[in-house]
Amino acid sequence: MEQLKTKAYGTKASLIDQFSSLSRMDIERNPPQSDELLIDILYCGVCHSDVHQVTNDWSNTIYPCIPGHEIVGRVVQAGTGVTKFNVGDVVGVGCMIDSCGKCSSCTGGDEQYCEGPVSWTATYNGYMKPNGNGYNTFGGYSTNIVVKEAFVLKIPDGLDIKAAAPILCAGVTTYSPLRHWGVKEGDKVGIVGLGGLGHMAVMLAKAMGAEVTVLTTKEEKRAAAEELGAHKVILSDDKEAMTQNELSLDFILITIPDKFDVNPYVSLLKRNGHLVTVGLLGPYKSATDNMEIAFHRRSMSGSLIGSIQETQDVLDFCAQHSILPHIEMIPIQDINKAYKKMLDEEVRFRYVIDMQSLKDEQ
Amino acid sequence: MEQLKTKAYGTKASLIDQFSSLSRMDIERNPPQSDELLIDILYCGVCHSDVHQVTNDWSNTIYPCIPGHEIVGRVVQAGTGVTKFNVGDVVGVGCMIDSCGKCSSCTGGDEQYCEGPVSWTATYNGYMKPNGNGYNTFGGYSTNIVVKEAFVLKIPDGLDIKAAAPILCAGVTTYSPLRHWGVKEGDKVGIVGLGGLGHMAVMLAKAMGAEVTVLTTKEEKRAAAEELGAHKVILSDDKEAMTQNELSLDFILITIPDKFDVNPYVSLLKRNGHLVTVGLLGPYKSATDNMEIAFHRRSMSGSLIGSIQETQDVLDFCAQHSILPHIEMIPIQDINKAYKKMLDEEVRFRYVIDMQSLKDEQ
Repeated sequence: MEQLKTKAYGTKASLIDQFSSLSRMDIERNPPQSDELLIDILYCGVCHSDVHQVTNDWSNTIYPCIPGHEIVGRVVQAGTGVTKFNVGDVVGVGCMIDSCGKCSSCTGGDEQYCEGPVSWTATYNGYMKPNGNGYNTFGGYSTNIVVKEAFVLKIPDGLDIKAAAPILCAGVTTYSPLRHWGVKEGDKVGIVGLGGLGHMAVMLAKAMGAEVTVLTTKEEKRAAAEELGAHKVILSDDKEAMTQNELSLDFILITIPDKFDVNPYVSLLKRNGHLVTVGLLGPYKSATDNMEIAFHRRSMSGSLIGSIQETQDVLDFCAQHSILPHIEMIPIQDINKAYKKMLDEEVRFRYVIDMQSLKDEQ
Repeated sequence: MEQLKTKAYGTKASLIDQFSSLSRMDIERNPPQSDELLIDILYCGVCHSDVHQVTNDWSNTIYPCIPGHEIVGRVVQAGTGVTKFNVGDVVGVGCMIDSCGKCSSCTGGDEQYCEGPVSWTATYNGYMKPNGNGYNTFGGYSTNIVVKEAFVLKIPDGLDIKAAAPILCAGVTTYSPLRHWGVKEGDKVGIVGLGGLGHMAVMLAKAMGAEVTVLTTKEEKRAAAEELGAHKVILSDDKEAMTQNELSLDFILITIPDKFDVNPYVSLLKRNGHLVTVGLLGPYKSATDNMEIAFHRRSMSGSLIGSIQETQDVLDFCAQHSILPHIEMIPIQDINKAYKKMLDEEVRFRYVIDMQSLKDEQ
C-alpha cells in the first residue's frame, strides 16, 4: 500500500541548532496494518510537554519533531482485524500509541510504566519500529495519524469534541493520581498551579467530592479558581497564609511544569498526607527536608500520565460530570504565538488547534 | 514528698560552649504522682540520636542535657492510681513519656505524631511541665526515672533484659514503617545502613517474611549482614551493582543518620515501590529527581519512632521471633569513648550501658 501524505507542523531543529519555531513540514505515514486505525485529526491540544520537547528540555528530542498528544479525530479507515471501532467513530489518542504488552506493568494495566526494552511508545518523539518513519514518531500537529486500536479511546457521546482533546493528557495525568491515591468525598485536596493540568485537576477533584484548595502565585487567578470550583485559594508566596494552612490537606497534586521548591507544600499536608508531582520531570529546586516529612509521616510521589483504561475512564467521567477543559481554539498558523503565550502563562487554560486550518493550507 | 536523688551522666555544655564530653552530674526527680511509676534503671541503650542531641545537631538542645531513651528497668514504686504494673515488674521506656492525649494523632493511637501545643514529650530534652526539673526532661543515663504508666512498656518474658533496651528506639523506629507500609511474606526489602537501626530492621523484615537486601558502603559489613539474615548485600558505591539492581525492591528503609543523596536508592525501587527514611532528620544532600520518581510511580516517605502500641508490639514480636539486638555492654564511665566509636562507625551494633556502674559510683 502507498504511504499516506500527511500535512504537519513541526521543527527541523537539530540538537546543534537551537529551536526557534514550528513550521510546515509534510511527512508520510505508513498505511494502517490489520490492528490499526487511520484517524483524520480534527483537533489537537497544545500541552506544555510539547514546548519542553521541541526545545529539548529533557535532552532526548529527536529532530525533526512534530508534537501533539491530545488528539481528537474521526476513524477514516480500519484494519481488517479491528473489532472495537468503525469508520466514522469519533476517537481520541493520548500520550501513548504502543507498549511492550508483556512486562508486569503492561499486563497489570499500567502501560504508562512499561518496563519493556524501549518502554512505551510516545505519540511523538517515541521510538519507531524499523518500518516506520525512521527514528521517531510524529504526533498530532498533523492532518492524520495511524494508531493501534488498543491505544485508541472512544470519545463518549455528550462530550463536546472541540474541547475534549486536553482530557487525553491534562485530564488523565491529573485523574490517574487522584484515583490511584484514592481521593474521595470530603478529602481536603490542594492543587498547585492553575494551568492546563491544574484547571482539570480542580474540576476532577471537586467532582470526586473533595474540598479543593488552589495554590498559585498569581492573585489574578483567584476568580478563575473559584469559578472552576475551588473552595479556597492560597497565594503560595504569602508566608502567613501558608503557615496558617499547615497540616490542613490530605492530598496535594502539584502541576508546576518547571523546577520549584517542594518544601513549602510538604508543610501543608496532614499526618499521613500524600503529595504527588506530575508536572516536573527532573530534580526539584532544592533538597527535600526529611524532618518535615518524617515528623508527620508524610509521603511524596510522582505520577506519569495514566493508563489506557484510565484515559477511557476520565473521558467517561468528564462526560458524566459535564466537565470540559477550558480551551481557546487556534489555527495551526498561530502555534508559535501560542507557545510564547504559554511560556508567559497567558493561556486560560489550554490551546486547541483546529486542524481544519492545516487541511486548508496548500 | 521529697525529691528523688538521682545519679546521672550528662553535659552542662551551653549553646555557646561546644559540647566536649559527658560527665557525672546529679539531678533530682519529682516523686511519682498517682498515675506514675518510679523505675530503677538497669540498662540504657546508646542511640545515635543521643550524639546528635548532646552536640546540638538539631539546634534545639537545652542544656544541661542527659540523654537516654532506650531504658529497661524495674518498677520500685507505683502511684496509687496505677493499674497495669506492679512493684518488681521489668519494664521499658522508649522515646516518649507523654503526649497531649487529645489531638487526632493521640486519639488515633499515633502519639509519636502528636499535634498538641508542644507535641509529645521526649524522654530527654523534652518540654517539661512547670512543676518539673525546670526546662527539659532528663533521660536514661541515670539511676532512676519517673514515667506515666501509659508510656511504660512491659518487657515480655523470654526477652533477655540485658539486650532488650535498643528495641525501645532502634527496634520500634524500624518496626513501625515496616508495619505501616505493610511489608509481608515474599516482599523484596532493602535496608540501607547497617548500624543500630539497620541491624534491627534486617532481623525484623526477615521475620516478617521479606527477602532482605542490605545496602552498605562497607565491604566488611557483608558477613554481619548475612549473619543477621540478609539474602543479598550491595555496596552502594558499586555503580554496576546498583544499576543491575534497578527496579528490584518493593520497599526500602534508609537508616543513615546523616545527610546523603537519596537518588541512587530511588532507582532500586520497583514500580509503585516505597522508600522510607528514618535516620535523617533534616534535608537530603541533594534534590530528589522527580523524573525517577514519576516514571515508576515511586514514593518517598519518612517515619518517626513509633507509637506506644507499636513499641509494645515490637517487644512482643522480638520475644516471639527470638530477635535480640546485638549489643556491647559498657559501664557508664566509658560513654565518651563509646560516642567516639559510634561516630567512627566501629560499634556492632549498639552500646548498652549497665547502670550498675553508675550506682556503684560515689
